[in-house]
Amino acid sequence: MSGSYPISKRNKVVRRHERGHYDHASVHAILDGALLANIAYVVDGQPFCTPTAFWRDGEHLYWHGSSASRMVRFQAPGVPVCVTVTHLDALVLARSAFHHSVNYRSVMAFGTARILDGREEKRRAIDGFVDRFYPGRSALLRPVNSQEFKATTFIGMEIEQASAKIRETHVGDDEEDYALPIWAARYPVRQIVGAAEPCPRQHPDARQPPPGMAPYREGRALDEVLTEAFRATAPPRAEE
Amino acid sequence: MSGSYPISKRNKVVRRHERGHYDHASVHAILDGALLANIAYVVDGQPFCTPTAFWRDGEHLYWHGSSASRMVRFQAPGVPVCVTVTHLDALVLARSAFHHSVNYRSVMAFGTARILDGREEKRRAIDGFVDRFYPGRSALLRPVNSQEFKATTFIGMEIEQASAKIRETHVGDDEEDYALPIWAARYPVRQIVGAAEPCPRQHPDARQPPPGMAPYREGRALDEVLTEAFRATAPPRAEE
Repeated sequence: MSGSYPISKRNKVVRRHERGHYDHASVHAILDGALLANIAYVVDGQPFCTPTAFWRDGEHLYWHGSSASRMVRFQAPGVPVCVTVTHLDALVLARSAFHHSVNYRSVMAFGTARILDGREEKRRAIDGFVDRFYPGRSALLRPVNSQEFKATTFIGMEIEQASAKIRETHVGDDEEDYALPIWAARYPVRQIVGAAEPCPRQHPDARQPPPGMAPYREGRALDEVLTEAFRATAPPRAEE
Repeated sequence: MSGSYPISKRNKVVRRHERGHYDHASVHAILDGALLANIAYVVDGQPFCTPTAFWRDGEHLYWHGSSASRMVRFQAPGVPVCVTVTHLDALVLARSAFHHSVNYRSVMAFGTARILDGREEKRRAIDGFVDRFYPGRSALLRPVNSQEFKATTFIGMEIEQASAKIRETHVGDDEEDYALPIWAARYPVRQIVGAAEPCPRQHPDARQPPPGMAPYREGRALDEVLTEAFRATAPPRAEE
């Protein structure tokens, strides 16, 4: 059985509250279909919003960056962050301007950034990062060296609160406007994966993608691919 | 001739500075291919990052929301915001964990949110919003009514500073690692538009999409469609 995140002013869906969801399953499904998040943080009152790759392990989100980067330097002391993920699913053209909309699935997750300490914790993080996207890949790679560990900072955040917001319907017009002779429609939008482009310097003994890449088939929706890869690496926990 | 944004600590690309661009043309090209931005703002020290539709007019960005929404209520007093746009172009799988990457085009734009006042300014904004995405469409719609204007707040921001960050290369490994028999590759990622799905309650005299929808052809990349629509509505200014 899935639980829910506690609701407060911070994560409550204020506008269009009927589109809001607070259960773990809805939030996780949106996160696990994504590679990039936008991470908001504050430096001296100035907000920054940095797009970066992230991954989930249970109720924790992780990302990483160069130890020299702005994001890492200013998140390192343990600051409040907002992690936002959005999938755009359709454009919706209505008969009046303000009923134009988009279909989307988004999550805002709130927590406090913290640095991952220690070589073992970092090793688990980088392996988890690679394998979450490309199942089994970490074991196939050239091992990480000390210099790489030193130059990279991993940041983790427990999801203290989160909300999902979803619109997945068709055109929604004022009732009297349906009678107007105005063309209205929805255009689906999909983010798709193309065919693998091998490295031009591929080793002759490494011409075949490893079996873990099976989810990455040409023309598939990226969120489906990423969800399948996530589940191959991290089978659903009992409570999900 | 295109100018550039002033560079300071706020918008300087710290890490991977060779990927940074500050000229108007690079920043505008990334913005004009997008529909959604992530807008970061601060409420009592807590960062929020809200995905929302936006559009550009010269050096101004605009977005809107319900007057009751959190985003609008807290941005209204004129607060610093960061508007981030990201296009994901490819997944890059290298021979070592830390050289895994993605190809992307992103912009961080900084400025101060301000409310658009007055009915005429709002009318120009909503027409500009609709037409920027769907050329000529505002003239075809049921006119906006007073209640809709009242319930909606438009926010504008002059781009004070911005930076673009772009990665568009192939696998980049340490020189000695190319000799390893490890499969490495790039997977292109594209966000594409599907075929129009007409409103199920379409008026019989409105079965054809209007000519302004010509850019929206099935299977095209959304960023190309949005760029073409933008240019159809807002021809490049002399200085661009």
